[in-house]
Amino acid sequence: MDYPNDQVPGAPIRFGIPEHGRIPKYYAVKAKIGVLVEELGEGGLLPTERDLSARFEVSRETVRQALRELLLEGRLRRQGRGTVVAGPKLEQPLSLASYTEGVRRQGRRPGRSLISLERFPCTDALAAELGAERGEPVWHMERVLLADDERVGLESTYVTVARLPRLDVDFDPDSSFYAYLHGALGIAFGDADERIETVLATPREALLIGTPPALPMLLLHRFSRDSAGRPLERVRTLYRGDRFSFTAHLGAQG
Amino acid sequence: MDYPNDQVPGAPIRFGIPEHGRIPKYYAVKAKIGVLVEELGEGGLLPTERDLSARFEVSRETVRQALRELLLEGRLRRQGRGTVVAGPKLEQPLSLASYTEGVRRQGRRPGRSLISLERFPCTDALAAELGAERGEPVWHMERVLLADDERVGLESTYVTVARLPRLDVDFDPDSSFYAYLHGALGIAFGDADERIETVLATPREALLIGTPPALPMLLLHRFSRDSAGRPLERVRTLYRGDRFSFTAHLGAQG
Repeated sequence: MDYPNDQVPGAPIRFGIPEHGRIPKYYAVKAKIGVLVEELGEGGLLPTERDLSARFEVSRETVRQALRELLLEGRLRRQGRGTVVAGPKLEQPLSLASYTEGVRRQGRRPGRSLISLERFPCTDALAAELGAERGEPVWHMERVLLADDERVGLESTYVTVARLPRLDVDFDPDSSFYAYLHGALGIAFGDADERIETVLATPREALLIGTPPALPMLLLHRFSRDSAGRPLERVRTLYRGDRFSFTAHLGAQG
Repeated sequence: MDYPNDQVPGAPIRFGIPEHGRIPKYYAVKAKIGVLVEELGEGGLLPTERDLSARFEVSRETVRQALRELLLEGRLRRQGRGTVVAGPKLEQPLSLASYTEGVRRQGRRPGRSLISLERFPCTDALAAELGAERGEPVWHMERVLLADDERVGLESTYVTVARLPRLDVDFDPDSSFYAYLHGALGIAFGDADERIETVLATPREALLIGTPPALPMLLLHRFSRDSAGRPLERVRTLYRGDRFSFTAHLGAQG
């Protein structure tokens, strides 16, 4: 079977044909659908599996494998019973700015939906991260993150009850936590350490975010301190890998 | 079947049992193997698929699915014909520091292996990114990144030939490109924009890095400028998602 000759000099690493020239059949189909995706443009409706399998003279199973990868990578998305070309990934700046601010900057409407807010005795691991005593009460707030009503992430925030004794009565969980900290309590962020990795969605996460199981996700860990340098919160945010990328601007070194 | 009750209050989002209590069988097995992984510790040898399937009274296929996810997530790795508990992911700082420096900081030995170095006429997209003329000669250098001789990434660097006319004769591709720029040519980094996303390895990438196909990878895009603010290089680095995480320190906002 023929396939796009993308081994031109300077072809970026993202082009996928191995030098030995043998490529998996599904990948050749994926490359062809990739060309179609470019032609259709954002929101364009992809032909059905049956049509694609007839057009490329391969089995439906091969078409399905190609589509599965394009869906996982966020180049396609399901819409009703069809499959359409997805828009670009949201770019979330790595900064002390909040989710709210990052999403707004791209013209999307941020939202959150509370899964649970509960108090529990601080564990050893959290005690070190929050500068708290083992066993002292800690809040765990879990929220689904929304962009234009689409579920795009899942966030767990840990903070001591001593810091925010009225979190359960004062705070509207559909609003920005950082706006609450700053506006209502006068707590200013000082600095934060972040770590990003890629993980697979667990069944529970997939269910809450509404993604296919085992979708690659970006997991962002954040430990932040207030302007006095005291530990403030421990946050774990899981972002859909097919919908998000992270950006950073790096200045000159000292 | 029973499974670890991890829905204790405050259980982090990474615990995966959905609230409705129904969990996929493979995931229950994955959770149990996860406990085993903790007990064995880094380098510990996992029982065979056959043994695990007998121990947990599930099919080998179910065990295989659980192991596949743990391998993709970097909690296990293949060693010879066995499967062992992997060490923690390498933490690469998001900074102007080089790959070399980041890997060294963790006590690992950085290395690179040249795949190709070629000149080609600058494309429209690259022209904008490199501040170059369309059609002017550009270098594309592709290298596999190593840590202690293990292949962990694949890097494509684009830079104009006008900037580095002697790259093909002067530069040892197994050494640090940044050390070359700075030491041999006196080019100092000014600043850079970076973007991180998660992608699936293509067959070619999987072959070059020696990973299973469709392993989730972290793709880092970098556009850097010299200290005079002129575009310097466009880099695409693909890191094994099971071996790397990225860290950033965020200072207070202005």
